[in-house]
Amino acid sequence: MKAPAGAERVAGDLARFSINQMTVRQLPLPELTDACVRFGIPGVGLWRQPVQAYGVGAAAALVRDAGLRVTTLCRGGFLTALDADARAAALADNRAAIDECVTLGTDTLVLVSGGLPDGERDLAAARGRIADALGELAPYAGERGVRLAIEPLHPMFASDRCVVSTLDQALALAEGFPAEQVGVVVDTYHVWWDDRAPAAVARAGAAGRIHSFQLADWVTPLPAEVLNGRGLIGEGSVDLRHWRELVDAAGYDGPVEVELFNDELWKRDGEELLRDVAERYVRHAA
Amino acid sequence: MKAPAGAERVAGDLARFSINQMTVRQLPLPELTDACVRFGIPGVGLWRQPVQAYGVGAAAALVRDAGLRVTTLCRGGFLTALDADARAAALADNRAAIDECVTLGTDTLVLVSGGLPDGERDLAAARGRIADALGELAPYAGERGVRLAIEPLHPMFASDRCVVSTLDQALALAEGFPAEQVGVVVDTYHVWWDDRAPAAVARAGAAGRIHSFQLADWVTPLPAEVLNGRGLIGEGSVDLRHWRELVDAAGYDGPVEVELFNDELWKRDGEELLRDVAERYVRHAA
Repeated sequence: MKAPAGAERVAGDLARFSINQMTVRQLPLPELTDACVRFGIPGVGLWRQPVQAYGVGAAAALVRDAGLRVTTLCRGGFLTALDADARAAALADNRAAIDECVTLGTDTLVLVSGGLPDGERDLAAARGRIADALGELAPYAGERGVRLAIEPLHPMFASDRCVVSTLDQALALAEGFPAEQVGVVVDTYHVWWDDRAPAAVARAGAAGRIHSFQLADWVTPLPAEVLNGRGLIGEGSVDLRHWRELVDAAGYDGPVEVELFNDELWKRDGEELLRDVAERYVRHAA
Repeated sequence: MKAPAGAERVAGDLARFSINQMTVRQLPLPELTDACVRFGIPGVGLWRQPVQAYGVGAAAALVRDAGLRVTTLCRGGFLTALDADARAAALADNRAAIDECVTLGTDTLVLVSGGLPDGERDLAAARGRIADALGELAPYAGERGVRLAIEPLHPMFASDRCVVSTLDQALALAEGFPAEQVGVVVDTYHVWWDDRAPAAVARAGAAGRIHSFQLADWVTPLPAEVLNGRGLIGEGSVDLRHWRELVDAAGYDGPVEVELFNDELWKRDGEELLRDVAERYVRHAA
């Protein structure tokens, strides 16, 4: 049973706010959707693994009945394999992810491109294989009303997760396809250091290719393996409001999704963390 | 007493090889210089702290008597302070480092520019303060025959160590000054991921601004705090020979210095590690 409407709402304008499921992964999907409704959070970004575990159809019904917008599905990609079987499997998995987007009612599939295969050192060749794979996936996505959103990851992930390290690179890949098929993710955590990123944001926005905007702050020291050290909004070195204003000035008016991977945050109570993140979004970015 | 000349020499062409002192920091300076002579290693890159602990004059005599070339002194920099006193102290410390270069007989001072001051989020302003500081330091260095070498550090250090993250940025800073006063360090660890770095290498080389070339490999997973996880030559994702060929093609014919910060390597026997690094240099880069 839900609390009285409005009783627990987070103060401030949350109209564009979306919570990425991974940020509060300690919350099972029903608890997450319920808390979003009570707090007045209109959007969620979902992850394939927990959604599949819950059942894609059931998850779609849950968020639809709660009146939530699914802002993104994370994630497809990993398109750098050299081996033919691995490449075919990756393409099939990405088609499945596109189908899941349709079921979930989201128009955006986030792509993490993939790292260097074992023993490989040729970043340019790996980037070329991503372009080839997009050639197969983009029309499939377009026919289903799904946009592929290439997410450049911070250069510290270039070897093992994503050979696409800058917005310029992501945009160059996207520009081979119609904007309604392929665009980019602007995630402050990954691009904040890059003096060329603001110009890339402007170009991407002018071309209608900003398909997702995600917020995370940069804090140090980084933890071992560096994956799960994304900073809570307002605690780090990134001028988050400035970046929100940059994407807005580029013509973006879509959701602002907070995606944090952080071992320390995952130890906290999920609802308390969700409220904290929403309040910080209002204070530091909205 | 030294071993017979040639008895312990490392096989292969070490003419351009230089070992950065930090790579084998477990070796006290006399043992390091002695091992370099026995192994046929002609160059060393020195660090201020151990050199100061040994005595700058005594260190200079030691390496000079051993017939070693001091390829760089690491490091000056940290020029991003907002506070006037801190800024004055940083400038004084950099002048002292330039003087130490003169004593040690090296023409190259490596600069690590510095991170964001506490609570600051403006990278561009911090970069501007570096340019201002160079305006004070470059003439001082030039009058003493010392070249300042701006080292872009990997973007994962942008907040806490170095707001200069790319060769393009380093070169833009250097270009405000004569090449014999200010240039750049090309360190494979920091720039290997950057698709724009090869063009920057070519520009830097054409302008005579490659003042140091350093090798380290990129290995994952990164350790906590990420500072001391630089990969042993040949064990990671960087095509080191390709980068050596790139700087050579840009007109660079100077030392190739191996600088590794790595907690695991520092546990090994220093002489054994030194030999291993020299042999790997021959195999993977020379």
